[in-house]
Amino acid sequence: MSLPDTPQSNHASLEKLFSPNSVAVIGASRYPGKVGHDVIKNLLHDGYAGELIPVNPATDTLLGLACYPSLVAYGKEVDLAIIVVPQPLVIAALEDAVKSKIKAAVVITSGFREIGAEGFQYERQVVELCARHGVRLLGPNCLGIINTESRLNASFAPRMPESGGISIFSQSGAICTAMLDLATGKHLGLAKLASVGNKADISEVDLLSYFAHDEQTTIILGYLEDISTGDKFVKAAEEAATKKPVIILKAGTTAAGLRAAASHTGVLAGADTAYAAAFTRSGVVRADTFESLFDYASALALQPLPKGNRVLIITNAGGPGTIAADAVERAGMCVAPLNFKTSVLLREHLPRIASVDNPIDVLGDADPERYVAALVSAQNDPAVDAILVILTPQVMTQPAETAMAIARNLDGSKPVVASFMGGSDVMPGRRQLSAVGLPDYDSPERAVAALKAMYEYAAWKERPPRMVTRFRVNKRRVERIITRRQRTGRLRIGEVKGKAVLNAYGFRIPKGSLAASPEEAVEIAERIGFPVAMKIVSPDIIRKSDLGGVQLNVSDAEMVEDMYDLMMLKIRKKVPQAKIDGIYVEQMVGKGLEVIIGMSRDPQFGPMLMFGLGGIFVEVMKDVTFHLAPITEVEAIQMLKSTRSYAMLEGRRGHHGVDIGAIASGLQRISQLTTDFPQILELDINPFIVGDVGTDPVVADVHMTLAPVQKA
Amino acid sequence: MSLPDTPQSNHASLEKLFSPNSVAVIGASRYPGKVGHDVIKNLLHDGYAGELIPVNPATDTLLGLACYPSLVAYGKEVDLAIIVVPQPLVIAALEDAVKSKIKAAVVITSGFREIGAEGFQYERQVVELCARHGVRLLGPNCLGIINTESRLNASFAPRMPESGGISIFSQSGAICTAMLDLATGKHLGLAKLASVGNKADISEVDLLSYFAHDEQTTIILGYLEDISTGDKFVKAAEEAATKKPVIILKAGTTAAGLRAAASHTGVLAGADTAYAAAFTRSGVVRADTFESLFDYASALALQPLPKGNRVLIITNAGGPGTIAADAVERAGMCVAPLNFKTSVLLREHLPRIASVDNPIDVLGDADPERYVAALVSAQNDPAVDAILVILTPQVMTQPAETAMAIARNLDGSKPVVASFMGGSDVMPGRRQLSAVGLPDYDSPERAVAALKAMYEYAAWKERPPRMVTRFRVNKRRVERIITRRQRTGRLRIGEVKGKAVLNAYGFRIPKGSLAASPEEAVEIAERIGFPVAMKIVSPDIIRKSDLGGVQLNVSDAEMVEDMYDLMMLKIRKKVPQAKIDGIYVEQMVGKGLEVIIGMSRDPQFGPMLMFGLGGIFVEVMKDVTFHLAPITEVEAIQMLKSTRSYAMLEGRRGHHGVDIGAIASGLQRISQLTTDFPQILELDINPFIVGDVGTDPVVADVHMTLAPVQKA
Repeated sequence: MSLPDTPQSNHASLEKLFSPNSVAVIGASRYPGKVGHDVIKNLLHDGYAGELIPVNPATDTLLGLACYPSLVAYGKEVDLAIIVVPQPLVIAALEDAVKSKIKAAVVITSGFREIGAEGFQYERQVVELCARHGVRLLGPNCLGIINTESRLNASFAPRMPESGGISIFSQSGAICTAMLDLATGKHLGLAKLASVGNKADISEVDLLSYFAHDEQTTIILGYLEDISTGDKFVKAAEEAATKKPVIILKAGTTAAGLRAAASHTGVLAGADTAYAAAFTRSGVVRADTFESLFDYASALALQPLPKGNRVLIITNAGGPGTIAADAVERAGMCVAPLNFKTSVLLREHLPRIASVDNPIDVLGDADPERYVAALVSAQNDPAVDAILVILTPQVMTQPAETAMAIARNLDGSKPVVASFMGGSDVMPGRRQLSAVGLPDYDSPERAVAALKAMYEYAAWKERPPRMVTRFRVNKRRVERIITRRQRTGRLRIGEVKGKAVLNAYGFRIPKGSLAASPEEAVEIAERIGFPVAMKIVSPDIIRKSDLGGVQLNVSDAEMVEDMYDLMMLKIRKKVPQAKIDGIYVEQMVGKGLEVIIGMSRDPQFGPMLMFGLGGIFVEVMKDVTFHLAPITEVEAIQMLKSTRSYAMLEGRRGHHGVDIGAIASGLQRISQLTTDFPQILELDINPFIVGDVGTDPVVADVHMTLAPVQKA
Repeated sequence: MSLPDTPQSNHASLEKLFSPNSVAVIGASRYPGKVGHDVIKNLLHDGYAGELIPVNPATDTLLGLACYPSLVAYGKEVDLAIIVVPQPLVIAALEDAVKSKIKAAVVITSGFREIGAEGFQYERQVVELCARHGVRLLGPNCLGIINTESRLNASFAPRMPESGGISIFSQSGAICTAMLDLATGKHLGLAKLASVGNKADISEVDLLSYFAHDEQTTIILGYLEDISTGDKFVKAAEEAATKKPVIILKAGTTAAGLRAAASHTGVLAGADTAYAAAFTRSGVVRADTFESLFDYASALALQPLPKGNRVLIITNAGGPGTIAADAVERAGMCVAPLNFKTSVLLREHLPRIASVDNPIDVLGDADPERYVAALVSAQNDPAVDAILVILTPQVMTQPAETAMAIARNLDGSKPVVASFMGGSDVMPGRRQLSAVGLPDYDSPERAVAALKAMYEYAAWKERPPRMVTRFRVNKRRVERIITRRQRTGRLRIGEVKGKAVLNAYGFRIPKGSLAASPEEAVEIAERIGFPVAMKIVSPDIIRKSDLGGVQLNVSDAEMVEDMYDLMMLKIRKKVPQAKIDGIYVEQMVGKGLEVIIGMSRDPQFGPMLMFGLGGIFVEVMKDVTFHLAPITEVEAIQMLKSTRSYAMLEGRRGHHGVDIGAIASGLQRISQLTTDFPQILELDINPFIVGDVGTDPVVADVHMTLAPVQKA
């Protein structure tokens, strides 16, 4: 439905949205308090310099501008139309507008998809109309757009923000206004703002890509409730984050919405798992709270990135220093000692009882000079990556002078953030901080959280290049199996065929064959060698061991025969309706650590790999990690390391470690398999039995679920 | 050193501190900017109505007051002396003051314990001097005290706070000033404030107990870096929290300071574990950040407690509603649906497309009436325990009017908190909220955190009465064992004696005896019955199984003899210096689930019980919980439930549950044992083998460490 989405066409078409030469407001109103009035008033008063055309059949002039009964009546081409007419008139307004060759439309009017099926139909008509005429559409049901560079405020937001480097997209108009209001309060300048509303055409993907290339934008902020197309989002976000920080608050993280899932992996992947994996992969700084959006934005917009995680704290009181040190440690960063040389030098500038350790305590009567001495020492110390300046209001404290003195002495080599604690006493200081562009936080903890976000973003930017290994595999064989299963509608692939699939992708599987009679079972067992394992094969039974469908260590021919009959008898009694293919007779698997490797295909983000230790670790402790495919070796090993039970893999008292590289390789092969075959919806290798370093892990059991064939 | 601490004497002596009839400022100064000037100026200007006596030999009058060369020269009795002279003169000043029969002294001057050994000595002299004359001492090294009721500002804090119900104690003067500044900004009224400084005499324990009984105080706030006496703290905090909310920010939680520990329990109990356990036990609301101190205080000071955890959200925009709902779910509370009847009634008052679900979306153009309709419905709905009102600034929004309308319609039946999001646009509304006493938060997430704190405090207040079971035990027997061991300096109690101790406290232990020769081992084994377990007994070996010092399932007499020799040989080779008592021959323990029960004695809070599942759950997953002894049955079961691996105890696929009550009983018995015997420093029952419901768990192994005998 939407336009071809090459970056060029996207950028060019959004250019007309944000920097139009002429703007029509269809539905402009004379009456203050009406949205149609606010929009035209904002455009007029906030200094937009292009052509401005109010459209309203009821009047000839509006706020001193010539007003037209229709856009056609205006008679010239127009770049952008803002639609604020009542919902039933939107189509007519757009039909009028496209005749003037508009390049983009912002539909502020609500009453579309968000009100149900009828609105959804109407929205489709709007989208089709725009697409037919090559018009990019923002909204419907949105607040509008702002571009501070061209002083364009085509929104009903109550005020034009200061000019700066932050660009914002938001799925909620109310969050837009709250952010605008906050940005003004914090003197944070904005570049562009787009309220995406129902995202009928222009979405976060278009805006990420546009803002990434926009020169005025130095940092991107987003508020999202859902993501339209996962793969495009990851691509656009990663590209943008490579150029500038992208901070996103994703709401709706806990509202379950779980799909029915047959696999462990599917069950364990919560609503938020895929988003978390996608943000991690693409370098998006995730804001967990509304406040942290701007907390992180100030730091990232105003300060250089840190080179490491060693935070130096400067304070004029012990208590807040301790609070800050706690926060640094809890965030997994480091309260590193100063270099000895730095301490000695600093000693000369501070009173005898001042602490020249970390935190540096410049004492309650500190003047700006003492703060500067501490700051300069910390800036020069190669053992310091980031600096937090804390000030509490005490008798001799000069908050404003201290802020200015700090600002004058910044060398720009490492990030400096501040927390001037308290209310009105420190307000002059806080105002000064924001005037000189030093990020300032209500509490040391929030300052530390911002440093942590900076550190993580910096680490992501420095990550090694992603190199996805392609293994040599027998893709044709898997294709044949999958095609046949899909054609015949047998979408659950059990142990036997599942092992064949994995074997084609380089996994080691135990020797074995399907037996249809006791005699055949004995034959197979004798060929393999005793002891053997025997397992019921049935498309209708998933947890066969719970039903007595698995027998291990069967030691001779007679036992094999007896077991065959016994297992068949038991299963037929317990699951009379199950179709049984026979019994799989298999080489016994050696001892090792049981892990689980899985994949669950997220509707938005595609194959999501899972790793965990088997048994109770998965079932009771839910100790698993996820990663989007395709995965690199580095990322696979990172997945293993981020489980709480990682020590089990490394070995511990009385146990030696297992081949971690072999598990990583297994994850990469599953990554390749599930990227090659989008038909695979879910996959569990459970257990995957891993032995000592240098040994090949074995697939003990596997299940997959395929997608039904799409009807054409 | 300090005075007898009966509540009466404490209360009476602190009464003179907070409500003196006369106050001397020794070291009062003429020079603005000096602390000695600020203190006398504050007393004078902030309206203290009692007698005010500046002492300074250099002048006759000071700020219009008669000034004396010494307090003796004043010639009358004085209740309270504030000492602001330089450090070397403090003792002389106090000696002067006690002659005027002062009841309390506040030493603001610094340069004591905090500067090292010399200062510590000097502080001791100050404490002794005060104790000798029955003078209660606040400080040294503090900001002073404030009592808004008597308009007493005996501090160098820059301003007198508004009058109200919050009383504060703080171990950091800077945190005091920051809190005062914040309270003023938020229009939160204060009752009393005490900066405790070095806590040489008056500590958090005295103040908790004083504030608990103080009528003006409705809520207690504290900032602590350490706690002086753990048991007294727990008692005072629990007593106070029963009467009014106590909110404490404890800093210094991560600075390791771990003691060397031989037991699992000791190793796993981090620096913060005991504080966490003490706060939970005593009903202290713990603030994790500086901001949350006041966030929680506003809610608890201004609103009634909720009866449950069902939060209803009222919002004028979808986005913030979603953010709030996320926060509620993440906090473990409940976004419960409205009653059907409420929804139907509410529908009449709201536009068609408004959401009458939870969140209630009153829409972007909501006027105060719509908010009131939603509020009234929620207040009347028995399925709602707490209400969060969110407002974002939109075109028609009337923040101030909405705040007033809400305030007028509160019925006081359940807590109502607000988040008016944004900056200057909502400021009139926020000012109105604080004027009418509605707690208001910068973000929905912080409002939710405050509701959570309220809910937890309410739940603590409603907890069942604590009933500690006393089991019938053989205390004498344990006393004999411990006394003998302490006398002989053998402080590590191993398996054999450890089992004897536990047996005396009602634990089931396997039959067994110590053998000093192969022949004796066989004799014992034959008496017990085969198979048996054999274990090396040595005071020098703790992890005997790692050294081949444990042999299970020894099945006949010959094997017992052989094993005896073999084990001795191996151990002598591996640990040649170890003293070996022999080999313990024991009945084999049946199968069951292995758990660990332990105790580590915290220097502040005494015996801290630990529970966890054995083996990897403890070693790899660190999945353990702690609780202060003595413990009740309800608390013991709560301990089990709060492990992540609790499902293992309840039983899961293919396994049935174990006797949870039997584990709880074990914890209670250890609680009794370690409360009875303070000599026991550490104890591990590892593993404690638990079977089906109705079976007695068995102690498979145990270790204890005793304290050395105190030299008299």
